[in-house]
Amino acid sequence: MRSTVTFYLCYLLCLALGLACVACVCVWNSRWRGGFAWDGSGLQFNWHPVLMVTGLVVLYGYGAVVYRVPLTWGQNKLPWKLLHAALMLGSLIMSILGLCAVFAVHNAKNTPNLYSLHSWIGITAIILFALQWGVGFAGFLLPCSPVLLRKLLKPVHVWLGGSILLLTTAACISGINEKLFFVLKGNVTYSSLPPEGLLGNSLGVLIIAFGLVVLKILSNIKWQRPDSRPGEIAYTPLQDENE
Amino acid sequence: MRSTVTFYLCYLLCLALGLACVACVCVWNSRWRGGFAWDGSGLQFNWHPVLMVTGLVVLYGYGAVVYRVPLTWGQNKLPWKLLHAALMLGSLIMSILGLCAVFAVHNAKNTPNLYSLHSWIGITAIILFALQWGVGFAGFLLPCSPVLLRKLLKPVHVWLGGSILLLTTAACISGINEKLFFVLKGNVTYSSLPPEGLLGNSLGVLIIAFGLVVLKILSNIKWQRPDSRPGEIAYTPLQDENE
Repeated sequence: MRSTVTFYLCYLLCLALGLACVACVCVWNSRWRGGFAWDGSGLQFNWHPVLMVTGLVVLYGYGAVVYRVPLTWGQNKLPWKLLHAALMLGSLIMSILGLCAVFAVHNAKNTPNLYSLHSWIGITAIILFALQWGVGFAGFLLPCSPVLLRKLLKPVHVWLGGSILLLTTAACISGINEKLFFVLKGNVTYSSLPPEGLLGNSLGVLIIAFGLVVLKILSNIKWQRPDSRPGEIAYTPLQDENE
Repeated sequence: MRSTVTFYLCYLLCLALGLACVACVCVWNSRWRGGFAWDGSGLQFNWHPVLMVTGLVVLYGYGAVVYRVPLTWGQNKLPWKLLHAALMLGSLIMSILGLCAVFAVHNAKNTPNLYSLHSWIGITAIILFALQWGVGFAGFLLPCSPVLLRKLLKPVHVWLGGSILLLTTAACISGINEKLFFVLKGNVTYSSLPPEGLLGNSLGVLIIAFGLVVLKILSNIKWQRPDSRPGEIAYTPLQDENE
């Protein structure tokens, strides 16, 4: 009971930090960076941090902890599997759009793509995420997938999920840091810590806090969904839920 | 048995990746950045990445996984506690020296300290690390610390230990990314990915891989040291080892 209360406190913190990240990145790019467009200009670039933080960090984190919510444990697992897969697909699509935004701006300005450490870490995270989603879909949702494969796949899926979150966190921090150095120069330098610098730094701190809370929820054994009961099989249209 | 073999493979990978990180950061700063000094010049700055990667990442990671080595399980825990505390103290001292290096260079050049997101994440990691070491020493090594306190402290200590590693990884990636943008401009830009850029990016990738392997070792329940047997108490001069 005490563990459940602690879980919901952590879960509320996770939801609140995620919303704060989204609000912060939207305010930064709409109010301080001039807003949004999809025309190869700097305004198209502004979609990059918004889509990455909202999709690859927040939606990803929300999707990762779905199975940990105790309210869902007494129910058939399949709808929660579908929700998990849908949230992750939404996150993946937003990440790919976020990539398209930055590639389009770079190409319009003849700037090379994928040279910085930030981009190496970010693209690795997205490639691993796409593989993770594909293998997860085939392994856990397709009816033809054997139970033994699911058993072997599950720990790898969970571990890789956490690892991708570590990669995306590192990519976000390096990206925000780099962006603030790029844009805050001249009269108002980053080193004088103007309001935009403070906002960007706060966004970074919120992302780190969000990542830590998600990883805390994922790593607590008491908060893991208990294995499904055999009786549940009857309610699952795609495949049994005993993996 | 299979689990032990897998552990030692992971442990060897951890040791090798750590050494590769140290070699990479030393080569980068000695051969590409002009070497080392302690005189307020740019050469003093070069100690910063070397000390942070060697101390705050590699030595910290090595210290974190000490208890997981199965060879040590049949023995009295105290020497391994002292080794854990000593490695972590070494890591903390190197991190503080690494901070001193960058503060001295900034002060000599009248550059403000602690304004960037990189520095915010890095200083938070070191403050948490210092607190973690102090509380860990008082809670787990001092004879006056009650057993109940140790039991409560242990999960917090383990969780905070992993969280600090996530913070230091993010700080390192943003720091390397920022440094490469600072130094690779003019004729040889970062975007043309010259050998120094490749080396710096590779260092970042090695740090991420090292962090993931350390977190993998820490998170595997099968690799956790079993609770000490009551008979072991007689061998521990400072306090019983049942926390």
